[in-house]
Amino acid sequence: MKHIVAALLAASATISPAFAQTTAAPVAVPVAEDFKPSSLNQPGQQYPQVNSQGYARFRIVAPDAKAVKVSLGLGGRGGTVLNKAIDGTWVGTSEGPLDEGFHYYHLTVDGGMFNDPGALNFYGSTRWESGIEIPAHDADFYALKDVPHGRVEQILFPSPSTGTQRRAFVYTPPGYGKTPHTRYPVLYLQHGWGEDETAWANQGHANLIMDNLIAEGKSLPFIIVMTYGMTNDVKPGSPGGLASFDIRPFQTMLLNELIPYVDRTYQTVADARHRAMAGLSMGGFETKLIAPKHLDTFGSIGLLSGGTFGVDDVNATPGFKDKVKLVFVSFGSRELEGGRARAPDGGPRPDPRANAAALKAAGVNSVFYVSPGTAHEFLTWRRSLHEMAPLLFRG
Amino acid sequence: MKHIVAALLAASATISPAFAQTTAAPVAVPVAEDFKPSSLNQPGQQYPQVNSQGYARFRIVAPDAKAVKVSLGLGGRGGTVLNKAIDGTWVGTSEGPLDEGFHYYHLTVDGGMFNDPGALNFYGSTRWESGIEIPAHDADFYALKDVPHGRVEQILFPSPSTGTQRRAFVYTPPGYGKTPHTRYPVLYLQHGWGEDETAWANQGHANLIMDNLIAEGKSLPFIIVMTYGMTNDVKPGSPGGLASFDIRPFQTMLLNELIPYVDRTYQTVADARHRAMAGLSMGGFETKLIAPKHLDTFGSIGLLSGGTFGVDDVNATPGFKDKVKLVFVSFGSRELEGGRARAPDGGPRPDPRANAAALKAAGVNSVFYVSPGTAHEFLTWRRSLHEMAPLLFRG
Repeated sequence: MKHIVAALLAASATISPAFAQTTAAPVAVPVAEDFKPSSLNQPGQQYPQVNSQGYARFRIVAPDAKAVKVSLGLGGRGGTVLNKAIDGTWVGTSEGPLDEGFHYYHLTVDGGMFNDPGALNFYGSTRWESGIEIPAHDADFYALKDVPHGRVEQILFPSPSTGTQRRAFVYTPPGYGKTPHTRYPVLYLQHGWGEDETAWANQGHANLIMDNLIAEGKSLPFIIVMTYGMTNDVKPGSPGGLASFDIRPFQTMLLNELIPYVDRTYQTVADARHRAMAGLSMGGFETKLIAPKHLDTFGSIGLLSGGTFGVDDVNATPGFKDKVKLVFVSFGSRELEGGRARAPDGGPRPDPRANAAALKAAGVNSVFYVSPGTAHEFLTWRRSLHEMAPLLFRG
Repeated sequence: MKHIVAALLAASATISPAFAQTTAAPVAVPVAEDFKPSSLNQPGQQYPQVNSQGYARFRIVAPDAKAVKVSLGLGGRGGTVLNKAIDGTWVGTSEGPLDEGFHYYHLTVDGGMFNDPGALNFYGSTRWESGIEIPAHDADFYALKDVPHGRVEQILFPSPSTGTQRRAFVYTPPGYGKTPHTRYPVLYLQHGWGEDETAWANQGHANLIMDNLIAEGKSLPFIIVMTYGMTNDVKPGSPGGLASFDIRPFQTMLLNELIPYVDRTYQTVADARHRAMAGLSMGGFETKLIAPKHLDTFGSIGLLSGGTFGVDDVNATPGFKDKVKLVFVSFGSRELEGGRARAPDGGPRPDPRANAAALKAAGVNSVFYVSPGTAHEFLTWRRSLHEMAPLLFRG
């Protein structure tokens, strides 16, 4: 996700800082030489590496190249420039520590964009990008543990409106299907611009977050459905940008095709009280466009770095206070730095914290969460899911 | 899959030709300028392209590079060398048509190995490689069609013997789970060396092959389980090579952990008659090591470019004739060219066709299939699954 996405998102709170910003240390601290391979490396690959302070070190084999650069490590200043080592490899370390969590990146090798052959790939920025993981201090909540695990199921469902067989991933909780009469609530969970239906499981570890929450008894078991939000035809920053985004094709597919298919083929409770919609960034934008207009379909709403709800929104939506069980809004703390920013039309953006408080005062079950020390990036969204899931389907 | 894998596979029939061999036309035929983007390109990417004759054309942006090469297109001669075009991109076309079907490849850019940013990635050769698809004349059998689709489910199961939570993918046929008392047979289907548990669905389209066969009434609906065969610690060509491969860790995990987990959590018929094991290349080698010694677990056996069964094998296995319902052996026609080759120990390799015929004469339900015009590559294995599936679980 490039920061431009958040900056342009009309409903968003503020200009987000650069993707994977580095924090210059106030005093010179030596870089700790305890680098270990990133947990997202391809099998057997030693690079990229991460140290205990969150620095990333890259090593690329391209003996005849003139210049190799990494799009990560110097927020806003174009990344980490690698230097040719004595053995002919290209090596470099980020200038400062990276934010905890997941970051997309790519290489520029002699002017061409390539992925790091050492790293696994993740779909973001409308391409499969390299990924690196800076171990977070709270990484335990999305760790793969010896607990009962749910499944992530690829379904292919017919979509007459788009003339295709479309793909979605469905998380089913541990024990799903063991008893034929047990039925589950469903969360429809959308990715952001540039991403696709693989993001929440691959980058987000949504399945592991849920497995762990359920094992600890903190969340009710529920189904999560993740499909492609048709967002990538809209190029943020291009003429028109998000303002010209047409929600209707996605909305038609979601409401008329995917939800009926899921309710037909899974053991769901097919009512609004047991159905939620949430999304990150542009997925939140989509959620805000669709869910309030379909409160007989969705009873809970989550916007993760994807806008806010104000009292005006609630007043403009008939039945909102009665029908909506939960409004969950979250951001990374770095997205909120610098206070109120200007909206694209020149007016002030709403303060999401004040908005959430006003909603609560108006009698809506409104929850606001800020992920500490993170920006418009996946650790914000992993934590947001971890905070939101225990609140869902309780009312 | 590099051809060296097949060449070293002790049970294999013959030295396979080079991976993705090109066929020099006997007379000069002009290259048809009807190139279209490969069906395995990343969204929106125009290159690589394929023409109606099976030529592949590559285009790479790397304006400051000295040399760019593709590991595909000139079987045995190191690939397709790209040349710098006037616009600064690197462009080249394979010297001849490629075999129909799926091929792995990568780029060499200034001495470094990278993937093609235009293509999707597939796990092979122990790394995520670029993939390209040459449309096969019979591609319809693995096409995504408007038929009922099964699911491909990622499971994470506990494996005390390896101290991990391991991943497998489970294909469940259309309608699975709709009726709680319907139970299904299970095929355990293994990938080859260098690959992993993603191969059969991603490269193999095993789910689409089954969806189509079931829709046509040609195959019984059954479950397919695909997990990692722990094969990649063995480097073919290295000292010891496959001869030093220890089947026991995989066998323990498969028999003591995965199969009980699947029978506990899926609607299976948990007996040998309704359980099969098959594999491609090294997965066939594993199948031959495990299944005949566990005929109370597996009642059907498939070796796809992964060795043969001879009468000696049958005679050496108590109960084989009574217990085994099907022995399916297949190869690509190019793997069989040149007749008998020498085995690594210098002795003659068995002729798989003669072996299959002798088995049949000895009273075993032995089926032998040859994929026309393909080598040690995935179209051979897609076709082999398509031939094998209708025969399974009939007895």
